[in-house]
Amino acid sequence: MKARVLIRPKQGILDPQGQTVERALPALGFDGIKNVHVGRLVELEVEDASQLESLCEKLLANTLIEDFEIQLDES
Amino acid sequence: MKARVLIRPKQGILDPQGQTVERALPALGFDGIKNVHVGRLVELEVEDASQLESLCEKLLANTLIEDFEIQLDES
Repeated sequence: MKARVLIRPKQGILDPQGQTVERALPALGFDGIKNVHVGRLVELEVEDASQLESLCEKLLANTLIEDFEIQLDES
Repeated sequence: MKARVLIRPKQGILDPQGQTVERALPALGFDGIKNVHVGRLVELEVEDASQLESLCEKLLANTLIEDFEIQLDES
């Protein structure tokens, strides 16, 4: 089964990559873009999807500063 | 409008983060997980969604080595 994990900085945690993107926008001619947040995307194939939560907590995300969201592609 | 951009290494391009995760799995007691790929996730709010393609090409993704996918949250 294919799965996708979205990992984002928790609310209130500094997001320097997002801030950098936001600051770069005007010079590149973009406006009307705000609240930019940069996180990580992990895609994988898993036999037993019940492992995913534990995998995220132990290896993929730093749960002190990051939230994760698991999306399963059942097809 | 909220938008999400998924950025992944192109097929055939080295994905050292994905390989590192894959190699760490057995020691942590996970098996049956394969094809791990690590990319980036950018979430933002945009007024004019037609800017997004250009934003990805110019700023968010390195299109030589990365593919991007734009997901709009119309709500």
